[in-house]
Amino acid sequence: MFRRLPVSHHTNSSAAGGRTGVWLIGARGSVATTAVAGCAALAAGLQPPTGLVTETEEFAASGLPALPSLVFGGHDTAGTPLPKRAEELAAQGVLPHWLPAAVTAELAAAEARIRPGGPLPGDGRSRTELIEAFAADMREFTESTGVARTVVVNVASTEPLPAAGVWPASSLYAAAALRAGCGYVNFTPSTGMHLPELAQQAAASGLPYAGRDGKTGQTLLRAVLAPMFRQRALAVRAWSGTNLLGGGDGAALADPAAAAAKNAGKARVLADNLGTVPEGEVHIDEVPALGDWKTAWDHVVFDGFLGTRMVLQTIWQGCDSALAAPLVLDLVRLTARALERGLSGPRPELGFYFKDPDGATSSLAEQYAALLAFADRLASPAPGEGEGR
Amino acid sequence: MFRRLPVSHHTNSSAAGGRTGVWLIGARGSVATTAVAGCAALAAGLQPPTGLVTETEEFAASGLPALPSLVFGGHDTAGTPLPKRAEELAAQGVLPHWLPAAVTAELAAAEARIRPGGPLPGDGRSRTELIEAFAADMREFTESTGVARTVVVNVASTEPLPAAGVWPASSLYAAAALRAGCGYVNFTPSTGMHLPELAQQAAASGLPYAGRDGKTGQTLLRAVLAPMFRQRALAVRAWSGTNLLGGGDGAALADPAAAAAKNAGKARVLADNLGTVPEGEVHIDEVPALGDWKTAWDHVVFDGFLGTRMVLQTIWQGCDSALAAPLVLDLVRLTARALERGLSGPRPELGFYFKDPDGATSSLAEQYAALLAFADRLASPAPGEGEGR
Amino acid sequence: MFRRLPVSHHTNSSAAGGRTGVWLIGARGSVATTAVAGCAALAAGLQPPTGLVTETEEFAASGLPALPSLVFGGHDTAGTPLPKRAEELAAQGVLPHWLPAAVTAELAAAEARIRPGGPLPGDGRSRTELIEAFAADMREFTESTGVARTVVVNVASTEPLPAAGVWPASSLYAAAALRAGCGYVNFTPSTGMHLPELAQQAAASGLPYAGRDGKTGQTLLRAVLAPMFRQRALAVRAWSGTNLLGGGDGAALADPAAAAAKNAGKARVLADNLGTVPEGEVHIDEVPALGDWKTAWDHVVFDGFLGTRMVLQTIWQGCDSALAAPLVLDLVRLTARALERGLSGPRPELGFYFKDPDGATSSLAEQYAALLAFADRLASPAPGEGEGR
Amino acid sequence: MFRRLPVSHHTNSSAAGGRTGVWLIGARGSVATTAVAGCAALAAGLQPPTGLVTETEEFAASGLPALPSLVFGGHDTAGTPLPKRAEELAAQGVLPHWLPAAVTAELAAAEARIRPGGPLPGDGRSRTELIEAFAADMREFTESTGVARTVVVNVASTEPLPAAGVWPASSLYAAAALRAGCGYVNFTPSTGMHLPELAQQAAASGLPYAGRDGKTGQTLLRAVLAPMFRQRALAVRAWSGTNLLGGGDGAALADPAAAAAKNAGKARVLADNLGTVPEGEVHIDEVPALGDWKTAWDHVVFDGFLGTRMVLQTIWQGCDSALAAPLVLDLVRLTARALERGLSGPRPELGFYFKDPDGATSSLAEQYAALLAFADRLASPAPGEGEGR
Ligand SMILES: NC(=O)c1ccc[n+]([C@@H]2O[C@H](COP(=O)([O-])OP(=O)(O)OC[C@H]3O[C@@H](n4cnc5c(N)ncnc54)[C@H](O)[C@@H]3O)[C@@H](O)[C@H]2O)c1
Ligand SMILES: NC(=O)c1ccc[n+]([C@@H]2O[C@H](COP(=O)([O-])OP(=O)(O)OC[C@H]3O[C@@H](n4cnc5c(N)ncnc54)[C@H](O)[C@@H]3O)[C@@H](O)[C@H]2O)c1
Ligand SMILES: NC(=O)c1ccc[n+]([C@@H]2O[C@H](COP(=O)([O-])OP(=O)(O)OC[C@H]3O[C@@H](n4cnc5c(N)ncnc54)[C@H](O)[C@@H]3O)[C@@H](O)[C@H]2O)c1
Ligand SMILES: NC(=O)c1ccc[n+]([C@@H]2O[C@H](COP(=O)([O-])OP(=O)(O)OC[C@H]3O[C@@H](n4cnc5c(N)ncnc54)[C@H](O)[C@@H]3O)[C@@H](O)[C@H]2O)c1
Ligand code: NA
Ligand code: NA
Repeated sequence: MFRRLPVSHHTNSSAAGGRTGVWLIGARGSVATTAVAGCAALAAGLQPPTGLVTETEEFAASGLPALPSLVFGGHDTAGTPLPKRAEELAAQGVLPHWLPAAVTAELAAAEARIRPGGPLPGDGRSRTELIEAFAADMREFTESTGVARTVVVNVASTEPLPAAGVWPASSLYAAAALRAGCGYVNFTPSTGMHLPELAQQAAASGLPYAGRDGKTGQTLLRAVLAPMFRQRALAVRAWSGTNLLGGGDGAALADPAAAAAKNAGKARVLADNLGTVPEGEVHIDEVPALGDWKTAWDHVVFDGFLGTRMVLQTIWQGCDSALAAPLVLDLVRLTARALERGLSGPRPELGFYFKDPDGATSSLAEQYAALLAFADRLASPAPGEGEGR
Repeated sequence: MFRRLPVSHHTNSSAAGGRTGVWLIGARGSVATTAVAGCAALAAGLQPPTGLVTETEEFAASGLPALPSLVFGGHDTAGTPLPKRAEELAAQGVLPHWLPAAVTAELAAAEARIRPGGPLPGDGRSRTELIEAFAADMREFTESTGVARTVVVNVASTEPLPAAGVWPASSLYAAAALRAGCGYVNFTPSTGMHLPELAQQAAASGLPYAGRDGKTGQTLLRAVLAPMFRQRALAVRAWSGTNLLGGGDGAALADPAAAAAKNAGKARVLADNLGTVPEGEVHIDEVPALGDWKTAWDHVVFDGFLGTRMVLQTIWQGCDSALAAPLVLDLVRLTARALERGLSGPRPELGFYFKDPDGATSSLAEQYAALLAFADRLASPAPGEGEGR
Repeated sequence: MFRRLPVSHHTNSSAAGGRTGVWLIGARGSVATTAVAGCAALAAGLQPPTGLVTETEEFAASGLPALPSLVFGGHDTAGTPLPKRAEELAAQGVLPHWLPAAVTAELAAAEARIRPGGPLPGDGRSRTELIEAFAADMREFTESTGVARTVVVNVASTEPLPAAGVWPASSLYAAAALRAGCGYVNFTPSTGMHLPELAQQAAASGLPYAGRDGKTGQTLLRAVLAPMFRQRALAVRAWSGTNLLGGGDGAALADPAAAAAKNAGKARVLADNLGTVPEGEVHIDEVPALGDWKTAWDHVVFDGFLGTRMVLQTIWQGCDSALAAPLVLDLVRLTARALERGLSGPRPELGFYFKDPDGATSSLAEQYAALLAFADRLASPAPGEGEGR
Repeated sequence: MFRRLPVSHHTNSSAAGGRTGVWLIGARGSVATTAVAGCAALAAGLQPPTGLVTETEEFAASGLPALPSLVFGGHDTAGTPLPKRAEELAAQGVLPHWLPAAVTAELAAAEARIRPGGPLPGDGRSRTELIEAFAADMREFTESTGVARTVVVNVASTEPLPAAGVWPASSLYAAAALRAGCGYVNFTPSTGMHLPELAQQAAASGLPYAGRDGKTGQTLLRAVLAPMFRQRALAVRAWSGTNLLGGGDGAALADPAAAAAKNAGKARVLADNLGTVPEGEVHIDEVPALGDWKTAWDHVVFDGFLGTRMVLQTIWQGCDSALAAPLVLDLVRLTARALERGLSGPRPELGFYFKDPDGATSSLAEQYAALLAFADRLASPAPGEGEGR
């Protein structure tokens, strides 16, 4: 279907900046596998860079690391190796069926750099020991591969909301990323850096981080539709939604405690954009027959002129991992460049990518404008010129 | 259901600027009737100003004419009087059933100021005679009511695309508006001011005008969804749509020649926002059983990462006249204020309201930003300060 | 909109059989109010009998009581009188806005025959006392109105699933109906006659009864779509559904315990028709902004030839009470006639009307065929001829 | 994904009856390719017989030819060989990607039996010459393969409605089938046997035939939903539909003349089932981006009790060829058995499969009942017993 394409990736910084490490928490999951396989396919010119915002011309001068310069490794608690995971995703139609064979070398190379995650039940290590062990893996990866810098990305299964005082795994990994001097991206609704105890360390670290929870479907739509209603002075009365998911994430979110974390982000986009919380609920159902495909149905009741009741419905049918993977690559490139430029702390400019962003606006149009401004800021400074936060 | 509400309309300019005339072409149509009845309901505090963008706080300092200061009249070729049209609309649920009785005085007052439109079949008058007759009606309205200025709004039935060299009725009315010194708004897809022969007169007139074709449903959605696809670097392959309309407009658009004018605007929003014209058609069907309710179904096929094919569908169920009427009131207020401030020529700042705007961007978010900038510009100048274009 | 119509209701039995009593449990609810007001509108020829199956020609010879011969009364625990409830429903668009005024006499007459239901919190009466009190009200109604016979219909709020050993209110009313010699219809998912302790009394009573839970939307669709999949040998993998309801029923079903009763019926129609239980869940959300309107979205994943995955989605937007009320009138007429003809016990022939029918098939087409056969059986016997069960 | 399955095809007649020839008009099209490849996959136990009604137990005793006993050949005017067409369909996800390789021998065998169809532009042969040439190909196929009998199936591109007096290609093939003593199935909306001049020959031939236009999506749904509305006495006011099709058929139907033939069948199912023709149109759009996938959106406006306006919408997303191919195999088996049993003339019992059936009812439930009765009739007679029509 697709031929090798003449693709010229933005490469302006790769020579100077060297290669970039990408450390994936949940490295054998669907999103991670799609990101690794897809990056290889794009680097080899086997596919056009559809879905990669950082490959559009607005980012050409930002000095982002080139796709072929990304080096992958990570943690996972599951054992199925990446090449086999890629086969499974191809059988479901997430990856083109010929792709796993075409990028088998790159998948095997990443697989060789995956270390056991944790903690598994029965693991007796203390919090400090776990953090140190994870950080050691990250440091070892950076050193052994010789990458100039590393970005840690959480794409592990959604965690339940943790009990008070308990550090969930995602926060152990976030602490490890700080300790190992890595940039950090939380693509999941899990806690990660959002722990009061981590705030001070993060502030002192001089490292950039961003989150939470990639915005790939229902919330993406809500981030453009809710502003429309507000701008037109239409009064939204109820916004209801149902998500049908198969795949690993569907199973994780069938746990109401895990879904609660997800739904908080979904509600926020409405509250922020509408200035009020409309009636309506959000459901997340596991439907294994859908495989990696998700369907999101939204039903919006609104009042028009003279109180006339009207309805908008949307149905989004997408491939979850294919929606998420390019955002992961975008976030890695932008965070790596921020790290290179010495920008630290939470990066609200990346709110375009998240359901529950760090202190950003909630309208996609404004988030995109902020992202473009960030792209300009990332552009290489004049020689000899440095830049702080 | 609704009680009298404490509503404080923005009134900062009404004292100084006096009352404002609104001359509706198609004054007995559904949109016109809803605008007249709704304006009266809001002026009396019987309903909140839902759907009126100019009643949001961003416009509070713009010096817009207050709703109670609007005075309505117009042309129509049909004979059913406004109070009866309002009854019909209430029976269909477009207006609250108690509203026609509550505003019967205002409807009767407007009805008394409606003059016969044209040209009807067999009308022997020349182009110049028709224009002069229409202009005379407009002038007479302005003088007899004592309004400070008048805005002409075309809300007549959609015309077929005119044959080359022929002036359609909408352009006769537009020429008359120029001659009578009125601001002009074309809420329909008809030709209106878009005639080469009118361009010079319009430029010389020193009058503001805006168009074309109010954006109230499918195109409104497309103006927020198409930018989302572009910003996310998702490749839209096909965008198909079907509109089901009852009411007078449905009947007019069942004529393929009239629908052609409408569809041109709908296609433009995609081409401008996506930078390419995707596959797919747009249908407009007359379904009398829907009354004044319209349903618009859109089906978008797009490629994500690695060429994965995905689909978004939207279903919009709205009341046509209730969607259009507040926009008409907004446009009247903004154009009247522009006229007062001496702003002339096409007003691309009003692209937010139109399917096929005069030289504006096509993304709703950018159009809204331009509108807010315009709101600032309209704010009263310092004493003694004038402003040209 | 509607004029008086020349309607000739089937009246063949009303002379001979006399008038028929209808005792509504939940007599001031939306369904009950719509049934009473609608019956009066039809009897007066103000509306055509849309939605009334028993007014189609297939039932012309069945000897059903004529609509004008129905006499209404009932129990309710709420106090808002019927004429006021009708006004509220008209304001929501459930009833034509002119209808409450047109049938105010009939509403007032029914209102006068409503007795306090129960038990309310703090009611100290024993089970037997309550049953006897309810039965006394029913007997008093039959006697004072002089109707030939009475059918009791449960249209009260859905109850939670009762704790083991506890008699819920619906079963107290069902027992009272038996004691008062009335036919009985359970239009709700509540327990009613489905209590082991009631089975023997019911069997001995010689009275006909039918239930459970009127089939008015999602389940109605499922009862025609599921057989289609089976007949075409298509393998349904997942059937998911979300219901958005306002109104009183939406509030009752927001209680998960009440929703559980409802969902059991919805699942059964799939299991029976498909021979297997597909993946997928059913949600019932309360959305007050929808008033008495409900929206049901269904999403069906099925396998076709060679395992190709396909999807059907349905969206049903209906007015709950307008869907339910004609079925209530149908059921009353059919049950009254069964009572007249001496048919007793559960009536599986009425499975056409129920989500969770007594021992009937689950395919709507077969249920309709069974109903037509029942219509034939109900036709008047030759003079002097009796008929048992 | 799928393993070899223990499949026991119904084989009761294959020994006695010998092998059965299947002559496909349009043998290299999508439907034909899917039927040939799918039959091979099922015969080899590589897939379960999903979608094949004749593999359900209701047909076990009907004496149908076993799937492994079907021998394929046919006419086509296009040149792409079957194995290559199968590769293309696998790339689109119509066939499992591993299937073409697994059944390459069977595809090559069928390919070797495809003869040039016609008439192509410039073909100078007379009507009689063309018919005779096609019939000769069919006879040669039957003889050279040694099959006991042959069924001709039209799965060629939809033709435009022919001009008066002109014999379209489909009718030439139908005449050839009669002349060659074959059973005949018209799976397309083209004219085929529906030509007055062919009626007498068909009647005299003693051969069974069936048509027209396979019912695989929108019309299938309408055939279950329209009876539901009628049975519930709900008044359908408007039924609108839009079909989006890619593939070869989408291109053919983009020709309004060809679409007209298709739409006639779609309208008939409503008229027959509702007893009235509701408002609304049907569109067929070509959307190449959809490949072999079709989307059908239907929008039904209906009146309930007291004239309350309600709406049902359905969205059907299916794979066209995967929907059609099993029906083709069903029809071949049933027609072959009818031929064996000496049943001749049009077979209304097969109306279950067609949009525009020969003299059958239009409700799917009744059509299914008629099909089951036909299955019983086809069951082997007692030894020595014959059966006429
Ligand atoms: N796909 C999307 O559109 C999308 C959007 C937003 C967020 N997300 C989030 O991305 C995450 C990944 O989704 P997915 O579909 O790839 O899920 P997945 O189930 O396929 O993969 C998750 C992986 O995380 C691993 N894991 C679990 N616990 C771990 C631990 N403690 N340490 C290391 N690894 C661990 C699992 O073994 C698994 O391999 C989820 O949290 C999901 O909510 C996905
Ligand atoms: N309602 C919406 O959402 C919407 C959106 C965009 C544009 N519009 C446009 O607004 C216009 C009005 O729509 P409507 O629903 O009120 O239609 P309508 O049919 O109810 O009213 C149109 C009126 O125009 C009158 N008319 C026709 N020719 C005339 C002439 N030559 N001179 C004077 N009057 C004439 C008719 O008599 C009628 O009263 C249409 O062109 C429509 O396309 C409406
Ligand atoms: N509308 C539909 O389409 C539909 C379909 C199937 C079933 N039903 C069932 O019909 C029932 C009525 O629905 P509705 O919309 O009219 O609800 P509603 O809330 O408007 O009315 C219920 C009435 O029951 C009364 N009630 C509650 N407890 C009672 C008691 N113990 N004794 C006497 N009265 C009591 C309430 O006071 C209220 O007036 C519900 O159980 C619903 O599930 C409705
Ligand atoms: N797929 C479905 O769901 C469905 C349903 C109902 C009817 N149909 C009908 O089935 C037919 C085939 O559909 P398809 O998707 O396979 O189309 P297609 O375009 O893939 O195949 C049609 C084939 O017919 C051949 N052909 C055209 N003219 C011919 C002629 N004169 N003689 C011999 N061959 C000729 C073409 O070369 C092509 O190979 C169409 O008429 C379609 O309307 C399909
Ligand atoms: Na209404
Ligand atoms: Na096709």
